Amino acid sequence: MQHVAILGSTGSIGTQALDVIAANPDKYKITALAAYQNERLLAEQIEYFKPEIAVLIDKQAADRLIRAYNCQTQVLTGEDGLVEAATMSRTDTVLTSLVGFAGLNPTVAAIKAGKTIALANKETLVAAGELVMSLAKQYNVSIYPVDSEHSAVFQCLQGENRQQISRIILTASGGPFRGRTAGDLANVTVEDCLKHPNWSMGRKITIDSATLANKGLEVIEARWLFGVDYEQIDVCIHPQSVIHSMVEFIDGSIIAQLGMPDMRLPIQYALSYPARLSSNFPRVDFNTLSALTFAAPDTNTFPALKLAYAAGKTGGTMPCVYNAANEVAVYAFLNGEIGFLDIAQVIDYTMRNHAVLANPDLVQIYSTDSWARRYALQAIDDLKRKR
Amino acid sequence: MQHVAILGSTGSIGTQALDVIAANPDKYKITALAAYQNERLLAEQIEYFKPEIAVLIDKQAADRLIRAYNCQTQVLTGEDGLVEAATMSRTDTVLTSLVGFAGLNPTVAAIKAGKTIALANKETLVAAGELVMSLAKQYNVSIYPVDSEHSAVFQCLQGENRQQISRIILTASGGPFRGRTAGDLANVTVEDCLKHPNWSMGRKITIDSATLANKGLEVIEARWLFGVDYEQIDVCIHPQSVIHSMVEFIDGSIIAQLGMPDMRLPIQYALSYPARLSSNFPRVDFNTLSALTFAAPDTNTFPALKLAYAAGKTGGTMPCVYNAANEVAVYAFLNGEIGFLDIAQVIDYTMRNHAVLANPDLVQIYSTDSWARRYALQAIDDLKRKR
Repeated sequence: MQHVAILGSTGSIGTQALDVIAANPDKYKITALAAYQNERLLAEQIEYFKPEIAVLIDKQAADRLIRAYNCQTQVLTGEDGLVEAATMSRTDTVLTSLVGFAGLNPTVAAIKAGKTIALANKETLVAAGELVMSLAKQYNVSIYPVDSEHSAVFQCLQGENRQQISRIILTASGGPFRGRTAGDLANVTVEDCLKHPNWSMGRKITIDSATLANKGLEVIEARWLFGVDYEQIDVCIHPQSVIHSMVEFIDGSIIAQLGMPDMRLPIQYALSYPARLSSNFPRVDFNTLSALTFAAPDTNTFPALKLAYAAGKTGGTMPCVYNAANEVAVYAFLNGEIGFLDIAQVIDYTMRNHAVLANPDLVQIYSTDSWARRYALQAIDDLKRKR
Repeated sequence: MQHVAILGSTGSIGTQALDVIAANPDKYKITALAAYQNERLLAEQIEYFKPEIAVLIDKQAADRLIRAYNCQTQVLTGEDGLVEAATMSRTDTVLTSLVGFAGLNPTVAAIKAGKTIALANKETLVAAGELVMSLAKQYNVSIYPVDSEHSAVFQCLQGENRQQISRIILTASGGPFRGRTAGDLANVTVEDCLKHPNWSMGRKITIDSATLANKGLEVIEARWLFGVDYEQIDVCIHPQSVIHSMVEFIDGSIIAQLGMPDMRLPIQYALSYPARLSSNFPRVDFNTLSALTFAAPDTNTFPALKLAYAAGKTGGTMPCVYNAANEVAVYAFLNGEIGFLDIAQVIDYTMRNHAVLANPDLVQIYSTDSWARRYALQAIDDLKRKR
């Protein structure tokens, strides 16, 4: 029996993870559930999975949960509650699916507590990849990817020698604006972005998918998860999202992982690894499958991808700045404050004005994140004022 | 330094294997080369690779080689010579790339001598799969596939638990007549068949590719190499031959191996396994790659594939009959004696008239092969008489 804590249990990844766990009650037991503020859904999850601890980061929501529901589960709140959920002694695996930079602190706490990490919070590795990977090594902790692309790469690397990787090829659907030019994109709305062709995801990641910033974050995440150089990571537009990613080895052979777009598969693999579990997830039917196509990404129209490579290659605190500026800009776009093309401009502007620190520690990463958010907000205000 | 003997060194696989070995002189040394009758090419190979033993199965060709070339290599002939080449004490790995059933005896001899087998002679496993695999187990010998499809499956299975295979998906280009109907194929010529779209191969395998008998032989080979049931082996038409085959696991995840159609890659992998060696083989360029398409095979137009499944599921001596009847029929077609559609008819007719023996020993396999060849020849005579 594997004891699992889920940080971010009411989000898209969290709920699908609970589907996987509900389908395998002989293999998994939930020890802790944590969410931001959705007390209604968390209450349902508590009732079904009966965790020892439940966390609502938002204190008012936690208070409402305690008042409204008479449950035996201990309800905690705030950052302390999150860390407690991430580090409980009974837990074997912590699935970190909080949105954004908020996932860093509890992930670091879970690593220091020796927990296996099922990582769905890519911002953790983007902002603090070097630090987190060296902590994982120090505490002898495994980090298994949940992102479908990184799960694909991880699956392709089974039984292979990582020294013999030639390149990692991350596939990208290209998002809802594939094939458009920058001119087409000046006036796109939030609603246009949320029509993602293949995946149903949260709002933040859907915007990231439309700007290709999501792929940029994945490039940085892949660099840390798989220990390769940025020159060894290619992005390939593959609109059908059937090939989830690939690895080319030094002999020219390419190993790819394929499947229907269904996040339950990589979530389950991160929990069951190295075993695979029987599932009723939809299968690829090659007799009816549409043609699989491939193309180079258009980084002129979608500069956020190019900026991610630049941030990654610069290293130090720069990927943290990339992530923070993107996060702020995406929420400003979601709130109707800036246009679609402004997102990459805010990132670029913030990166240009950052004085990089090499090998940052956790405090430096937090202070960089804080600086970048303030700077990006100011950049957004400037943009608004210019209109 | 790995010592390699190549049986069938002047054929398509043999010459490409020597290309791989010539490119890696620090890793491989040729101990023996064997061919059927091409003494001119074998003489060149002897001069370059300086094996201890060279074999020409054809005695007259061997005599010509000895007379014409003054070489230090010992020249042998016949079946005995072949077995000696397959079993020399210095040899680590025997690459068996003889065409057809002739590969069985030296492969068995090599296994009994404890040699690692790089298997390019699929007829060995088709005719005697059960026997050969149990001998390999008994002598603790590894058999590494050279066929591109089986190498792909083998690569996809690295680091995986074979108990968790859901199905193996062998891809097939569909050959030169993909999309045609039986009516279209009544009068196709040998030249029509030899225009294979993606691979440059020997004459026998090119005809097998046009009838889909080659895929049928591969299905049976896969059953033995990977220990799965026939119900777990699917064939998928994939005209671009970029995905060389795939494995679906019980969780629904599919691992695939991709590459340009170049036999040097699987040949090299069979020799270098578990390592991969740097190569200058052509790389897949996803930015210019054409769309990858998939379809179910048309087993009404190409019944040889259906017959292979039937032979495999019947088991015992039936796959041996399938192979022998096919081999005889293909050579009759190559000689202009029968039509293209007659090939499957000869196989079908011979299979229908065979009294199956379960768990055949080597003698029973040879006598079955002999019976099937005689029966198939007679069936061909009958067909010619009816015209």
